[in-house]
Amino acid sequence: MYSFQNDYSECCHPSITERLSLLGNEAFRGYGADRLCESAAAKIRRAIACPEASIHFLTGGTQTNLTVIASVLRPFEAVIAAETGHINVHETGAIEGTGHKVLTAASSDGKLTPEMILALLASHTDEHMVKPRLVYISDSTELGTVYTKAELTAIYALCRQRELILYLDGARLGAALCASCNDLSLSDLPRLCDIFYIGGTKNGALLGEALVISRPELAEDFRYEMKHRGAMMAKGFLLGLNFDTLFTDGLYLRLAEAAGQQAARLRQGLMDLGIPLMVDSPTNQLFPVLPNHALPCLRRDFAFEIWGPVDEEHTCIRLVTSWATTGEAVDHLLTALESF
Amino acid sequence: MYSFQNDYSECCHPSITERLSLLGNEAFRGYGADRLCESAAAKIRRAIACPEASIHFLTGGTQTNLTVIASVLRPFEAVIAAETGHINVHETGAIEGTGHKVLTAASSDGKLTPEMILALLASHTDEHMVKPRLVYISDSTELGTVYTKAELTAIYALCRQRELILYLDGARLGAALCASCNDLSLSDLPRLCDIFYIGGTKNGALLGEALVISRPELAEDFRYEMKHRGAMMAKGFLLGLNFDTLFTDGLYLRLAEAAGQQAARLRQGLMDLGIPLMVDSPTNQLFPVLPNHALPCLRRDFAFEIWGPVDEEHTCIRLVTSWATTGEAVDHLLTALESF
Amino acid sequence: MYSFQNDYSECCHPSITERLSLLGNEAFRGYGADRLCESAAAKIRRAIACPEASIHFLTGGTQTNLTVIASVLRPFEAVIAAETGHINVHETGAIEGTGHKVLTAASSDGKLTPEMILALLASHTDEHMVKPRLVYISDSTELGTVYTKAELTAIYALCRQRELILYLDGARLGAALCASCNDLSLSDLPRLCDIFYIGGTKNGALLGEALVISRPELAEDFRYEMKHRGAMMAKGFLLGLNFDTLFTDGLYLRLAEAAGQQAARLRQGLMDLGIPLMVDSPTNQLFPVLPNHALPCLRRDFAFEIWGPVDEEHTCIRLVTSWATTGEAVDHLLTALESF
Amino acid sequence: MYSFQNDYSECCHPSITERLSLLGNEAFRGYGADRLCESAAAKIRRAIACPEASIHFLTGGTQTNLTVIASVLRPFEAVIAAETGHINVHETGAIEGTGHKVLTAASSDGKLTPEMILALLASHTDEHMVKPRLVYISDSTELGTVYTKAELTAIYALCRQRELILYLDGARLGAALCASCNDLSLSDLPRLCDIFYIGGTKNGALLGEALVISRPELAEDFRYEMKHRGAMMAKGFLLGLNFDTLFTDGLYLRLAEAAGQQAARLRQGLMDLGIPLMVDSPTNQLFPVLPNHALPCLRRDFAFEIWGPVDEEHTCIRLVTSWATTGEAVDHLLTALESF
Repeated sequence: MYSFQNDYSECCHPSITERLSLLGNEAFRGYGADRLCESAAAKIRRAIACPEASIHFLTGGTQTNLTVIASVLRPFEAVIAAETGHINVHETGAIEGTGHKVLTAASSDGKLTPEMILALLASHTDEHMVKPRLVYISDSTELGTVYTKAELTAIYALCRQRELILYLDGARLGAALCASCNDLSLSDLPRLCDIFYIGGTKNGALLGEALVISRPELAEDFRYEMKHRGAMMAKGFLLGLNFDTLFTDGLYLRLAEAAGQQAARLRQGLMDLGIPLMVDSPTNQLFPVLPNHALPCLRRDFAFEIWGPVDEEHTCIRLVTSWATTGEAVDHLLTALESF
Repeated sequence: MYSFQNDYSECCHPSITERLSLLGNEAFRGYGADRLCESAAAKIRRAIACPEASIHFLTGGTQTNLTVIASVLRPFEAVIAAETGHINVHETGAIEGTGHKVLTAASSDGKLTPEMILALLASHTDEHMVKPRLVYISDSTELGTVYTKAELTAIYALCRQRELILYLDGARLGAALCASCNDLSLSDLPRLCDIFYIGGTKNGALLGEALVISRPELAEDFRYEMKHRGAMMAKGFLLGLNFDTLFTDGLYLRLAEAAGQQAARLRQGLMDLGIPLMVDSPTNQLFPVLPNHALPCLRRDFAFEIWGPVDEEHTCIRLVTSWATTGEAVDHLLTALESF
Repeated sequence: MYSFQNDYSECCHPSITERLSLLGNEAFRGYGADRLCESAAAKIRRAIACPEASIHFLTGGTQTNLTVIASVLRPFEAVIAAETGHINVHETGAIEGTGHKVLTAASSDGKLTPEMILALLASHTDEHMVKPRLVYISDSTELGTVYTKAELTAIYALCRQRELILYLDGARLGAALCASCNDLSLSDLPRLCDIFYIGGTKNGALLGEALVISRPELAEDFRYEMKHRGAMMAKGFLLGLNFDTLFTDGLYLRLAEAAGQQAARLRQGLMDLGIPLMVDSPTNQLFPVLPNHALPCLRRDFAFEIWGPVDEEHTCIRLVTSWATTGEAVDHLLTALESF
Repeated sequence: MYSFQNDYSECCHPSITERLSLLGNEAFRGYGADRLCESAAAKIRRAIACPEASIHFLTGGTQTNLTVIASVLRPFEAVIAAETGHINVHETGAIEGTGHKVLTAASSDGKLTPEMILALLASHTDEHMVKPRLVYISDSTELGTVYTKAELTAIYALCRQRELILYLDGARLGAALCASCNDLSLSDLPRLCDIFYIGGTKNGALLGEALVISRPELAEDFRYEMKHRGAMMAKGFLLGLNFDTLFTDGLYLRLAEAAGQQAARLRQGLMDLGIPLMVDSPTNQLFPVLPNHALPCLRRDFAFEIWGPVDEEHTCIRLVTSWATTGEAVDHLLTALESF
């Protein structure tokens, strides 16, 4: 059985479990105030070239999203997101659970544009409607697409001009930064958004997300917010260990590249087989459209997600590669697909 | 430096890191629907002798408390807790953050009694006041004390009679069950409360808490609640691995016993030295009262928490042993204390 | 200056102020437990032919909507509404403020259909998404349209089958019931939805909305919910007086009819002038499309709301008649419109 | 039957119903943007000598309290109140419903002191506990007591020094300002607290409370908050009419004085009869302690509230006078009390 189900199906890169094993009975301070978190934060600050950034480690994406958003908004303020945005669809109303409406723009590729944001601002004009205040984007998006530096620059310029907070969900930031068409680097992000997180869960960490708040006024008392939402881990040093390892010798990007290379091979193979892709995704999530009769056979040897029906006879599936995906798995999958 | 700071300062029992290392690149299903969670849940159901229990794994105590409480209460319903209760003092208003008031009873030993509950019920009589609906207790308590079977039975009888939900926070359940004066067993709990959790973080797990909902009508749709609060871990199999290991060959109780034995030695040593204890705690948290001048010296070699001033010249500190505490550490501490 | 701005611009029907003046210094019990509320509730129960209905009086629509919805949903449950629904657009995120997502269906006439509801149910399949649980409709809708008995029957049948709660916002229920195409009566409502309110504010009351909960299990402890949301008026007897008056001698429907008759005259006049209507509304809200240059002139003598631009040269406005609108006002408006 | 039940049992001062009757069919702008609200706000700004104050009209006390508190706090921030405070006891968890903990200090007379506030600040030291941020006081208090200028000055000085917001609940502000021992005036309040409200419901208004925000940075976007909580009345002009009338020719204080005078007579009469008072209240709420056997007889002719048992044979009751209480009613009550 080969899994293309997700990029968080495997445990973690062996260097992390090795380091865990070596900790022995060393006693760490609790709640992220330990030497590993400190070291990891220092390495991240260097990698993003932002010495004043406030860095926090949390255990999951939904938890990070809801804690951040609830922290910076007043009760009547709302979020702007693409209709496909993770917070809008796949977080069981977690943002609304903290009291905030998510306003959405239809987007075929999962990305927001300044025009979409402007349209939502224009239709929210007075105190009888929510006040849009935070723009949520993800890179890569739910559909595997990425933002160019020009696109992100334009969005952020609009945000600054209209006093909106720009928050980038980086659950798959590694995948985005390693895409062939990408021209953003980690060090661009603190200048092109206000808050973002570097996803560990989906890029080889045992667990954890590293949150970066680059505008100091948005970071105030953030640890209170974390605790208030149940998002402050007692053994925070575990999160520190993960990111300290990922940000040593460039491991973070190397793992993302490994996933990206297998995705590139898979994409090329799908194209060679004439299998259409629903979205032109340059990252580790691919969305081939297959004849319905192919699915049961494929299911026997491969794990993957059904994305949705395309027409009566075709279905879009999602194939995800991870840092742990082998060339052999891709070869087997492509061979299996040859027969349809 | 020896740490008596807390019972979650060390990584975890080596059998857990070993097993992690052996997972390799096996792909697991996400969100707790994997074979390790399944196996762990089965073992827990056996240990608690409750085949119909609903078991869920979460990453931390505050997260578990807020998710459970918000799940079973209507907006106007309130919690009853001891004034010292963790949810009342040390969770940064997480319960109120989900909309619910915490009503408190003063309690010198951290425990609730039926009388305290009855008094709060008697003073909340109509719709101008919140409606008490859930009783929150912890075993062991914040002050290290434990409930006897008779005490818990009396509380639960009252709860059933008055239609209150009884929720037991078991962050330190292992410590309670291994106390010399304890007469409760794991298998008593599903019959003596409605919901409880078996704490892993403070008893040798890498991370995780195992939530047990023994009344089916309270378990409905609980996975929605978890996701809604950001409390559903993508790599849920990690939590499963922890509890599967802890509930193999009785490791869970063995670790708690180890901590308890060192605490017993430390308690005896303190008594031999004539050092008074603020609370008569039979578990792994001890609260000696020391002369203020002793603290700076002690701080040099030992980590611990200041509990609070007792009088002008004395301070209560908290000493916590864990599964990883060595006899040597206890010996050194007692030797150091001899000089005051 | 003639106002077509809204149906809550004028004080109230004189019979209400008269009765207020006659109260003198009579002392009433507080919080709605008085003889006037009791009498009003009895009259409403008769008018809706539902002796077991639970009746509550609140001061405004948004307050009623948020109190009801938060009362009957669990945290992860969501509302289904038309995209134009009042709770989705014009309540400043009040529903989300209580923690609940509002899922929307595009609807050109402001009405929901079983198909729209089914589509939303079909796309919300597991615990990673909110669980749709309450269907929100309004009659008349935000666009002045009304539900037929057949339409409402079909929606409610679906709701019962799929365990959804059907809530009908009756801010303009009077207007709906007096529409020429309407075939619903007050006494149909308790059998065709679970909860609804009879709007007073927009139909001649000084203030107040009368909430009807026809399914007893949804009414439990509702007074706690009201107080919890700041929605229980100390001088509840004022609300009782309003509805007791409105439900004496059929005043409620007579006032709605008066507004409807002036709207009908206005609609006919607009059609005679060849002025197109954006929506085919049979009630007291009309949406004519006017050339932009007409607006400044019209503004001089008439108050109304700009609904939105239609094309570069045309704008849709909203004209609302109330129980207090005079034939003279309608005549003047039609005369003024002749010149464009 | 004479009522000493409450100060909001009667309709309102006749000048208000008269003015209502004279409104006829005048059309007002909605949501408080009308000429009556404008006029009332101007009069209040003059009366409090604070031209820059932001004034808003709401329909009730709990609604005002929850809207204000939720507006100015971040999610993890808490309120400090006396244990007897209305928000702590009699608002069904409305403040917690918006996510905020209420920290309380025991207080025998219902008043807070700087010492009590300092003690709560001292015990809330880090991000594992809520952060106290708003101090809630009421004048007069739940026990009828009042703050002196010196007391309020001391509290506010502490608040400014420790960056706390001081909010004064003035549901019975008129009663406080007319107490014989009072040395505060309306114009002192904007300089001695940040936000307060002038209660109408309990002082002769038909309905309404006038909220005053004297620090501009706390007033920003407050109308969004009102709408978000269902606290913006469509017919806001009704609230404007009430306060415009109350602040014409000093009616507001005259009504409070009338209530105070009857309370003074009643207090003197109780003392003359040797009936002990539980609290030394100088305002319109009196708390006599009566033998239990007196209550059934008294109940026949007088309405009042049972405050609570004092000992086995005595009960404290609450007697409240209002602007509408007659000397005759007081005489009858005193006569009736003579026999016990």
